[in-house]
Amino acid sequence: MDARGYRRYWDEERETRDPARRDVLILERIQHQLHYAYERLPFYRRHYDTAGFHPDQVQSLADFTAKVPIITKKMLVEDQRDNPLFGTYQGDVADDDVARIQGSSGTSGIPTFYRVSRRDWERAADVHAMAQWAAGLRPCDIAQISFPFSLFFGGWGVIQGAERVGASVFPLGPIESDRQLELMFKLGATCFSATPSYCLHLIGVAEQLGLDLASGPVQRLLVGGEPGGSVPATVARITEAWGASVHDAGSTSEMYPFQTNITTEALNGVMLFTDEVYTEIVHRDDPHQPLPDGERGAIVYTHLWRDSQPMIRFWPGDETYMTHEPSSCGRTYPRLPEGIVGRLDDMLIIRGANVYPSNIEAGLRSTDGLGAEFTITVERRGVLDEMTVQAELSPETAAELATLSADDAQARRAAIRAEAERQLKAQTQIRVPVELLEPGALPETVFKARRVIDLRGEAT
Amino acid sequence: MDARGYRRYWDEERETRDPARRDVLILERIQHQLHYAYERLPFYRRHYDTAGFHPDQVQSLADFTAKVPIITKKMLVEDQRDNPLFGTYQGDVADDDVARIQGSSGTSGIPTFYRVSRRDWERAADVHAMAQWAAGLRPCDIAQISFPFSLFFGGWGVIQGAERVGASVFPLGPIESDRQLELMFKLGATCFSATPSYCLHLIGVAEQLGLDLASGPVQRLLVGGEPGGSVPATVARITEAWGASVHDAGSTSEMYPFQTNITTEALNGVMLFTDEVYTEIVHRDDPHQPLPDGERGAIVYTHLWRDSQPMIRFWPGDETYMTHEPSSCGRTYPRLPEGIVGRLDDMLIIRGANVYPSNIEAGLRSTDGLGAEFTITVERRGVLDEMTVQAELSPETAAELATLSADDAQARRAAIRAEAERQLKAQTQIRVPVELLEPGALPETVFKARRVIDLRGEAT
Repeated sequence: MDARGYRRYWDEERETRDPARRDVLILERIQHQLHYAYERLPFYRRHYDTAGFHPDQVQSLADFTAKVPIITKKMLVEDQRDNPLFGTYQGDVADDDVARIQGSSGTSGIPTFYRVSRRDWERAADVHAMAQWAAGLRPCDIAQISFPFSLFFGGWGVIQGAERVGASVFPLGPIESDRQLELMFKLGATCFSATPSYCLHLIGVAEQLGLDLASGPVQRLLVGGEPGGSVPATVARITEAWGASVHDAGSTSEMYPFQTNITTEALNGVMLFTDEVYTEIVHRDDPHQPLPDGERGAIVYTHLWRDSQPMIRFWPGDETYMTHEPSSCGRTYPRLPEGIVGRLDDMLIIRGANVYPSNIEAGLRSTDGLGAEFTITVERRGVLDEMTVQAELSPETAAELATLSADDAQARRAAIRAEAERQLKAQTQIRVPVELLEPGALPETVFKARRVIDLRGEAT
Repeated sequence: MDARGYRRYWDEERETRDPARRDVLILERIQHQLHYAYERLPFYRRHYDTAGFHPDQVQSLADFTAKVPIITKKMLVEDQRDNPLFGTYQGDVADDDVARIQGSSGTSGIPTFYRVSRRDWERAADVHAMAQWAAGLRPCDIAQISFPFSLFFGGWGVIQGAERVGASVFPLGPIESDRQLELMFKLGATCFSATPSYCLHLIGVAEQLGLDLASGPVQRLLVGGEPGGSVPATVARITEAWGASVHDAGSTSEMYPFQTNITTEALNGVMLFTDEVYTEIVHRDDPHQPLPDGERGAIVYTHLWRDSQPMIRFWPGDETYMTHEPSSCGRTYPRLPEGIVGRLDDMLIIRGANVYPSNIEAGLRSTDGLGAEFTITVERRGVLDEMTVQAELSPETAAELATLSADDAQARRAAIRAEAERQLKAQTQIRVPVELLEPGALPETVFKARRVIDLRGEAT
């Protein structure tokens, strides 16, 4: 029993299973999915025949990594373009057995379409419930959801889990921020689901409304949709201002059910439900070379249970590292200690250093006096790429500066700027100039933040 | 079996039951609900004690109408104000057993909160499925939903039914109109759910995009949220332009599950599932005086199954009439031949005539050459109220006029205007001046239309 009188796990046998025993089950499911895909899904048959791969070659998890070709978003888009609407990987699912159709924004305005069978949809609800239960959601909670309910899976995945847990669901979607907060306080919502950027943004909105988030009703934040939910300084800032634990969850739309990973109540990184979506970390230049715990590489996902549009060794282009150390929550799954660290193609090379937007975010969040919004500008100067950061002061800091003499205010700004640059140096090993902006100078982030402005393609 | 090989009814025994036998079941449920409310819900206890009513007094359906006091929206709002958040009519439901919290827009910014138990929520899915099945929705259909998924019940009720039917659900919510149509055609959505105003609005958008709705994929339109879905001329216009049947459904948020009524495939008015929500038509000045079939009066609703916030003799202020004539679809429920005709307090008295906005809508929809948008302006001139109507020309008509000589165009406009005024005279018995506007002159309706502009309170 937990502190509130509920059982501790959603599915104790599954979540605390001996990892070696779990690997046996995972291998069985991998073999099943490989044969299903090879026999019934032309997309995989073509891909595997071209690579000279056959499912019979996989007799171990090591074989799986060593021998099975990866697939990418680009391959899925091309297959849907050539075989509309759902591609030849749509799976052996009759129209009558389809529960959901969703989509993602696509280049040229045509979305990638997702088509989920009833069986897969039902199963997704259960694993999303397992994830949210692991984050502490219980039937007594009121779960307010700010993710949109529209074309993307966004809010739909969150609500499925909260409904299955048995929480009271309050699904507002992305309404105006002041209304979002007023209703949250009025209703006493104990759980709030949003992007980390939006949680940061609401800190400022709450101050303007005179609402004290830290003494407010919310006890846990289920965040996702972007990486910030595992950036330590971001998590610390949100946790302190909200007086609530931060739980990072969610992989990608291709991998629906996307909550096969979540920060549990142990708050020690993102746990991976590998018996639902098997997850590997491999070398960024060689998808058949597994990496040991702690080494950063590319993440690769495999659906173990989906019939409709199953992904086998899907390469989303995300970078991170794994650990198999035991978790104090008692679950025996591996974890991503820092969640998704960044996108492989987001890496910027600045004067020889590898810099990720998440490094910049971590540095700024560790600097007192700054607000939620910032941008990173990258430009070419001569033969070198250079980076500058524009960061807003927090509303309180701006208000404080307004009470000072001009000289004192200037000194205080210089000190904040110096501290920000010191934090960025610590994160990136290079000097990154920081420009301070007034609160409100940058566009407000109400959904996912767009941080990087890349001017390298433009004439200078 | 129906033409597509599915069973004809969702629940044949229930839907085709002998009405006398159904009334026995209804009376049992009414007695159960009255006792439950009187014993466990202080709101009802106070109200009934004040009126000198006791549940034991109801031994027949006639007793129910004659003896049970009605309740109104105002009473619910006051009870929630005095007993936040959910009022003393919230019902005997533990926090752990609450599935959903939704709200309605309220005066002074505080919504009325709706709180639905898990049992009631599950049951709502089933009756919504029964309604949508009666309108012809089947598992092979793709159901695109444009109602919002947010604070209001709107889209949530529609999606519950479509999911339970087993259709492929494509829940876009209120996205941009051109995107709504592009995705509809791309995906081949066979069912579209929207307000009637929005269906009309999309006719013009489709023309601009060069999409032919009539030969498009949509075969049925599930409409609601406002009365137009049963205004014959509106239905005719939508049916012709879309090449699809129009099914009017939905009562009020208080009465969730709101799809306890729907235009079935027989297309002969709105059928009432009276064994889910018992429905009476009574005299507008005496809620205890039942009216016979065909006579217009006030509608009164009663939840027969809800534990959470059950409504017993709820008076929404809507006006209509009923029929018990058999329906060709074989279901044995009564019907509202014209759906909800209007709101009792929407009635305008113009030179002694009772005029409803629905009369104006019906007249304009019968006039060739007009577009979707119109407004009704009411002003005081001396001691009399006067009404004028502003109606947009359709884009095709405007384009046609632009090709004519000035004299010919003027003559054509005069003819359209005269025809509109003739149609309004036929509907209202009085002369209503019509002013023709260019397409786009009035704000576009993308959700519920706001038609009446009342200037009587202003200085003239």
